[in-house]
Amino acid sequence: MTPLKLRLATITIIHLSLFLLVSSGEVFARADTPEQIAAGLRQKAMTDSGAMEIVTDLTTEIGPRLAGSAAEKRAAEWAKQRFEKIGFDKAWIEPFPLEHGWVRGIEKAEIMEPSPQPLVVTALGGSVPTPTNGIEAEIALFRTYDELLAAPIGSLKGKIAVVTPPMVRAQDGGGYAFASKIRGAGPSQAARRGAVAYLLRSLGTDGRRTPHTGATRYADDAPRIPAAALTAADAEQLERLVACGKPVRVKLLLTPRDLGAVTSQNVIGEIKGSEKPDEIVLLGAHLDSWDLGTGAIDDGAGVAIVMAAAKLIHDLPQRPKRTIRVVLFGSEEPGLLGGKAYLKAHTNELDHIIVVAEPDFGQGPIYRMQTGVTDSEEPSLLRIRAALAPLGVLPGNNESHGSSDVEPLAEAKVPAVGFDMDGSDYFDFHHTPDDTLDKIRPERINQSTAVYAVFAYLAAELGGDYRAPAPRLTK
Amino acid sequence: MTPLKLRLATITIIHLSLFLLVSSGEVFARADTPEQIAAGLRQKAMTDSGAMEIVTDLTTEIGPRLAGSAAEKRAAEWAKQRFEKIGFDKAWIEPFPLEHGWVRGIEKAEIMEPSPQPLVVTALGGSVPTPTNGIEAEIALFRTYDELLAAPIGSLKGKIAVVTPPMVRAQDGGGYAFASKIRGAGPSQAARRGAVAYLLRSLGTDGRRTPHTGATRYADDAPRIPAAALTAADAEQLERLVACGKPVRVKLLLTPRDLGAVTSQNVIGEIKGSEKPDEIVLLGAHLDSWDLGTGAIDDGAGVAIVMAAAKLIHDLPQRPKRTIRVVLFGSEEPGLLGGKAYLKAHTNELDHIIVVAEPDFGQGPIYRMQTGVTDSEEPSLLRIRAALAPLGVLPGNNESHGSSDVEPLAEAKVPAVGFDMDGSDYFDFHHTPDDTLDKIRPERINQSTAVYAVFAYLAAELGGDYRAPAPRLTK
Repeated sequence: MTPLKLRLATITIIHLSLFLLVSSGEVFARADTPEQIAAGLRQKAMTDSGAMEIVTDLTTEIGPRLAGSAAEKRAAEWAKQRFEKIGFDKAWIEPFPLEHGWVRGIEKAEIMEPSPQPLVVTALGGSVPTPTNGIEAEIALFRTYDELLAAPIGSLKGKIAVVTPPMVRAQDGGGYAFASKIRGAGPSQAARRGAVAYLLRSLGTDGRRTPHTGATRYADDAPRIPAAALTAADAEQLERLVACGKPVRVKLLLTPRDLGAVTSQNVIGEIKGSEKPDEIVLLGAHLDSWDLGTGAIDDGAGVAIVMAAAKLIHDLPQRPKRTIRVVLFGSEEPGLLGGKAYLKAHTNELDHIIVVAEPDFGQGPIYRMQTGVTDSEEPSLLRIRAALAPLGVLPGNNESHGSSDVEPLAEAKVPAVGFDMDGSDYFDFHHTPDDTLDKIRPERINQSTAVYAVFAYLAAELGGDYRAPAPRLTK
Repeated sequence: MTPLKLRLATITIIHLSLFLLVSSGEVFARADTPEQIAAGLRQKAMTDSGAMEIVTDLTTEIGPRLAGSAAEKRAAEWAKQRFEKIGFDKAWIEPFPLEHGWVRGIEKAEIMEPSPQPLVVTALGGSVPTPTNGIEAEIALFRTYDELLAAPIGSLKGKIAVVTPPMVRAQDGGGYAFASKIRGAGPSQAARRGAVAYLLRSLGTDGRRTPHTGATRYADDAPRIPAAALTAADAEQLERLVACGKPVRVKLLLTPRDLGAVTSQNVIGEIKGSEKPDEIVLLGAHLDSWDLGTGAIDDGAGVAIVMAAAKLIHDLPQRPKRTIRVVLFGSEEPGLLGGKAYLKAHTNELDHIIVVAEPDFGQGPIYRMQTGVTDSEEPSLLRIRAALAPLGVLPGNNESHGSSDVEPLAEAKVPAVGFDMDGSDYFDFHHTPDDTLDKIRPERINQSTAVYAVFAYLAAELGGDYRAPAPRLTK
């Protein structure tokens, strides 16, 4: 941070404090300017955005919400009812088919030699099972992914490949982006080299004994081998034992099941615009979660942020000109399946979407606004940036392609905004049993909700157009 | 902390820094005074005590070491060899019978109503199993243990009792002492009131999804019901669901097994005194651990501290006058069984033990020295306190009864010293899968080893006698 930026940040904080101090009485009046209304939204959200209550209810009343599961369906019903309770004009569920439902089974691993002891593992999402009595084999350990790739084809014959690089902690999640191929492509890379099973050090930044799951993607040209994540402590234990020089043998038992075709669903709620109801500001989040925790940071927080932001706008004395549409996607975790289904189902109305944004990186705070629009200096965007500055949001570049479920829309040239959330501790909990409500802090989720509320309100009210001048899709 | 104490602490820290700064060249010379030798032990231990290597090897080469298990036996052989490798004059194993070996089995719990979702639990040590298809029942939740005790006999008929007070974090572990009856006596108290199973919020100070095991003690006059610990997050989830007002039903499956009679063992190593070999300074620690982690903080750290302290003394140019005896106890976790067996086997030589001490509260640092001796102002004790002051060790009271395995000795009137370790974070990991090597910090375990080395050396060299003038045991 340069001294100038530091000064600006300090001024921002002072502004915010003063604002909270001097405001009193009625927050909104009908004659207020959009900026005054945005200021009221900021104040209200920072005090109590309502997001905490939503994430509490979702993670308590439903709990984990695995893609395509009965729990995910219950969550969809819950969300629809919540939209209706808030007073959305419309709320509906759009089912879509899922080629493969998947459920976790037993997951057990142990060191057999040279020193028998259990290992803590969890199957990667989509992993095939081991034989029912498990796989026991010597391990071939690689401290970097590149070392695995450098191993000759066939060289891992009969072995369990183990890949153990630690993941780097970074505010923007860059460590995950860098390491994600170890989980996604690793099993097939190991299988091509002859491995019979695959273990990786969890993609996580914590030092706790809770492993991180997440989807793997088998390639078509390699045998499908069982794949699981070790905790950091277990990966380091294997590293130390291998360093002793004796062969290390591991036994792995995984019994996940492919359920075949199931259904999932997106849940959609709308607050109709007062003047241009056909123009849509779309906020997304995903309703499904992995099964180990209760999906509080991933993505219960996102669900709460967009629902609460929409409710804050709904509760204004006068609704904004454009429609606010909230889409709670299903089956994000297995590979943005809800986002892809939404794009397919709504191809004909893409021209109506003014802008999309989705929080899917925990609870925040949000520290930067990126755009992916035709003209990033469009006047209303300048006003939005100014209205977000008191919340500590920096301006960013114009390279955003949204995040998660709205990425397919952004790829179809729908304008996107990406709000960068501080993910410094996100990967301490992400995809683990520890993704639970107690990790959510009101002051963090309130700030994120304030950002989304101000953004969505001004994008719907100010009338700025971020779309390309020409049709975007060749239909 | 009063300003005066704060000043003293600051001076202590400055002393220590200066000491480390100005020392150079050979650490020990034959003509050194005991205080000079103690200063050399401090310096060496604070730089590299050797404890880190020992705890690394124990937790890696052996891993978990459940009381009475094959792993505990491997650990005993490992320890005996380690004593021999260090150069102890004698090292031997003393087996003793264990009435009940116990192993963990499947442990599974889930909320069935009103919102199906899994719970993370672990069986308490010694718990009986549930029926093979589990127990499903409505829960009766108590936010304090007193509320459970206030429930009338018979009032919990057919229910699963759940007790959920959070444990208080305290430097001296006072929160654990206060809460331990919830785990020890709770199951029988619930059974007397008709409960069919018992769940408690883990005795822990963390907010992570790793439950804390630990022994429970069934009373003879109550049915033995299955008992398990929930994580904090799971306990709070049940609290929220109960607060919603609908009945909450939980299913619990535990398949631990009572193995019947097995054997355990204490491992003993001795460095004979140069002038008074029959007078013993006894350092203890326990070699067994719970099965979930690798027993790094409980009590691999203690094992490493006393072994490394003894090695530092062994490596002096001249050995101290009295014998240093290190006892690594077996089966501490089920109820100080190694300590009791040692007392029974060594009753005839209690008069030879000058003083006992045992680290069993993690890695330190040690911040206070308590005594349990005839005269706490005995001159050599004053010299020991002075030699420990540069390590930041405060003087304490004379109420100590040692800790863990040496408590039976202290109860038999053997003089004891209790070194208070900073346990502020101990119960974040204690008895969980997270009790692993990565939690140990060299600077912390080195300081504790320095304290034990200086203490044991001076207690063996200075000739102070802390024993009662009359025979202590009526044999």
